[in-house]
Amino acid sequence: AQEAAVRAQAEAVRRLKQDKADPDEIAKEVAKLLEMKAQLGGDEGKPKFVLKTPKGTRDYGPKQMAIRERVFSAIISCFKRHGAEVIDTPVFELKETLTGKYGEDSKLIYDLKDQGGELLSLRYDLTVPFARYLAMNKITNIKRYHIAKVYRRDNPAMTRGRYREFYQCDFDIAGQFDPMIPDAECLKIVHEILSDLQLGDFVIKVNDRRILDGMFAVCGVPDSKFRTICSSVDKLDKVPWDEVRSEMVGEKGLSPEAADRIGEYVQLHGGLDLIERLLQDPKLSQNKLAKEGLGDMKLLFEYLTLFGITGKISFDLSLARGLDYYTGVIFEAVLLQQENEHVEELLGVGSVAGGGRYDGLVGMFDPKGRKVPCVGVSIGIERIFSILEQRLEASEEKIRTTETQVLVASAQKKLLEERLKLISELWDAGIKAEMLYKKNPKLLNQLQYCEDTGIPLVAIVGEQELKDGVVKLRIVATREEVNIRRESLVEEIRTRTSQ
Amino acid sequence: AQEAAVRAQAEAVRRLKQDKADPDEIAKEVAKLLEMKAQLGGDEGKPKFVLKTPKGTRDYGPKQMAIRERVFSAIISCFKRHGAEVIDTPVFELKETLTGKYGEDSKLIYDLKDQGGELLSLRYDLTVPFARYLAMNKITNIKRYHIAKVYRRDNPAMTRGRYREFYQCDFDIAGQFDPMIPDAECLKIVHEILSDLQLGDFVIKVNDRRILDGMFAVCGVPDSKFRTICSSVDKLDKVPWDEVRSEMVGEKGLSPEAADRIGEYVQLHGGLDLIERLLQDPKLSQNKLAKEGLGDMKLLFEYLTLFGITGKISFDLSLARGLDYYTGVIFEAVLLQQENEHVEELLGVGSVAGGGRYDGLVGMFDPKGRKVPCVGVSIGIERIFSILEQRLEASEEKIRTTETQVLVASAQKKLLEERLKLISELWDAGIKAEMLYKKNPKLLNQLQYCEDTGIPLVAIVGEQELKDGVVKLRIVATREEVNIRRESLVEEIRTRTSQ
Repeated sequence: AQEAAVRAQAEAVRRLKQDKADPDEIAKEVAKLLEMKAQLGGDEGKPKFVLKTPKGTRDYGPKQMAIRERVFSAIISCFKRHGAEVIDTPVFELKETLTGKYGEDSKLIYDLKDQGGELLSLRYDLTVPFARYLAMNKITNIKRYHIAKVYRRDNPAMTRGRYREFYQCDFDIAGQFDPMIPDAECLKIVHEILSDLQLGDFVIKVNDRRILDGMFAVCGVPDSKFRTICSSVDKLDKVPWDEVRSEMVGEKGLSPEAADRIGEYVQLHGGLDLIERLLQDPKLSQNKLAKEGLGDMKLLFEYLTLFGITGKISFDLSLARGLDYYTGVIFEAVLLQQENEHVEELLGVGSVAGGGRYDGLVGMFDPKGRKVPCVGVSIGIERIFSILEQRLEASEEKIRTTETQVLVASAQKKLLEERLKLISELWDAGIKAEMLYKKNPKLLNQLQYCEDTGIPLVAIVGEQELKDGVVKLRIVATREEVNIRRESLVEEIRTRTSQ
Repeated sequence: AQEAAVRAQAEAVRRLKQDKADPDEIAKEVAKLLEMKAQLGGDEGKPKFVLKTPKGTRDYGPKQMAIRERVFSAIISCFKRHGAEVIDTPVFELKETLTGKYGEDSKLIYDLKDQGGELLSLRYDLTVPFARYLAMNKITNIKRYHIAKVYRRDNPAMTRGRYREFYQCDFDIAGQFDPMIPDAECLKIVHEILSDLQLGDFVIKVNDRRILDGMFAVCGVPDSKFRTICSSVDKLDKVPWDEVRSEMVGEKGLSPEAADRIGEYVQLHGGLDLIERLLQDPKLSQNKLAKEGLGDMKLLFEYLTLFGITGKISFDLSLARGLDYYTGVIFEAVLLQQENEHVEELLGVGSVAGGGRYDGLVGMFDPKGRKVPCVGVSIGIERIFSILEQRLEASEEKIRTTETQVLVASAQKKLLEERLKLISELWDAGIKAEMLYKKNPKLLNQLQYCEDTGIPLVAIVGEQELKDGVVKLRIVATREEVNIRRESLVEEIRTRTSQ
């Protein structure tokens, strides 16, 4: 009976695949199938093994890695262009280091098992470890980037690039500086990276926690409800105002009047004009926090004008950002829906970068509470991978996964030793070279290997060539063959494979 | 009373530091101090926070990262030179994926807390995830590298580069090939990397699990004790034979005669001559496994001769390697004690690379037990970092942690806007540029920043230069200053900073 159930499940999976169903759906059903098979036991009756990666995680094969390295290289170039140093921290932190930093999201933190010794948790982002690093080393001044994996026990949506293990690429500026200059640079960086990666049109929404808090105050939100109302506002990019309003009033006990006043503000978005208008707003302009925030926002827009990027920047009062630790400017970049671009439509639009100012976080770690003002940006790389991966698949562009310049081959038998000698010479000269691990491979197989993997040259050794002190160099693309003197081979390969 | 204890501990730490005691020792006492302080509570009575990274882990600051990237770049170059693709896998695996792969070392695996859902463990090495990846994707043929952190709840010895979180750099060749060709390439790779990094003299010890097992058989070790006796032999690089012998006889119940016979074999090391001698050994030559292993060892040495690297290779019967999964050739590279090199002496010698053949591991994951023969090498990067870090510190060589080409500066006040405009132009042209985040920085401070961070050029904007359409370019090293037309500035910076 159990076997029949397994067969039925296998059939269901086959049908889903045939119908090209949602890959998440297929994955779920495959997982179920594997589990049923495991329970059923293997051929010899021993319980069968579930062969998978943990929920919400994935392997990166060579092709995915090639895309990943392209994206990383663009991002790292940008960070270095802006003079950043690089640091790294452990993948786990003391549990208490993460406690009280993430508000409602804390439940998503992965804890390690208590195996004796310290209680540990996997890092949830790179910002809190950075603040811990600054406080621990008494650093008051640094511009650094950090690219590493972070962990969230969230509901994965893998086809949309939402994983439980994912990369963050963070750039932060720590130190006491004149207002808005580092903040403007962070936005310039987002603009440079998104332009560079050619992901299509985007907009960077900007707001300020002080403007939000001032707005909450003038709308009549009690102080104690600022953070929780803020996290309701944060949902506005995913759910409509009506739902957010009923959460505020129903779940969070806000008065309907206050909610409606918020509702009017969060519809607003624009540029310098909107900032000027709000600076004249009879209520907001009376609130000290809001006034400070709006003043700085104006300064920020002046700097962004000098950078020539205000075209993609929107001052947006509905932007709230989920995390507790922001204290000033906050921002988030979203890709815009593309007309005529099937791929992006499938993916939906979404946030690909975000960040803001967090002037209090380092002080939470310092024994004397000394503050180090910080502002930073995090690039959400997984969504970008997903887009580029699907785009590459659609385009059928062939992507090389190795950099091998030459295959060392032979046309006759019994030349393994000669191939080993030649390839060793090439490696020692810094040439990227491969050979087939066969004593007597067929020439055709060797040439086929070059076709398959994109190796441009073949160095062929044969009895005659050995006698003449030459190597036959074949250009795979043109099938041209030339005899090269052995002592000139390295130079010849270098010349022919330098772009 | 508790406060007095804290003061006493603080005094103890101070003394240890003064006496330049063993850094591990100091770290231990500092940790104790911090914990005592934490228990005592902060200034306002709230429990103070322990500001540290988890035991056995460390942060990498910009200087350490600069060293790390140099080492990685040498290793990755070598892996690419040998035509490897790259993959990545999640930092954790299903717990059952790791079960039964590491023998006695399994107790060192980090488990995650059961928070509902799957049971997970942090990866212990990159080999088992690789085998899982091959089986899961039905890959029978790949040459890949993987550089990532692995986790072991071992006793850390941080000054000697032994951590609980550490990098492994793995290169593996999977597939059914003619004997010893991929195995020889792995040894060539170790040789290339260690030569490249200029760590001093080294030797690569080689043995074969089949030779070991054959040896155990002819010495009278019962089959059931092969693996446990093997792990005793594995300790010979750290403890003398006498101790290993008494472990075999005392703890593991081996007969003294068998132990003594093993004792004779494990003293042997040499080259082709020793292989030939053992092939004639009246007992070993009668054992099928040993004969196979010795035959392959001979072939391996022939290939290594063609690669010209036998000078650094030692066939060593005492080499056993700890892990369960090896089935054929095994090897380990150790640095040799350097005369007159204070630094290495402090560090002691030790293994910096190791690997071997594991033909059965992938089959453990395949539902049908299909085998994929594999051989691979792992570079133990942390010890190499430690050596290079200490060497760099001793040499007082100044190492740059950024690549910034030019600082955008001004000599007069009120030129922030002009600096922002110019730096934006430079960034957009791909120039690595920084500026101080001050409205009106002093020129002296700007020049000092260049001295401190190694920035070679300063682009100075001033009223007069703006009128004339030029920028004053200052060469930090020579203090020379030249006026460059604004439209030629990018080209000029490029020329002056290209090596």
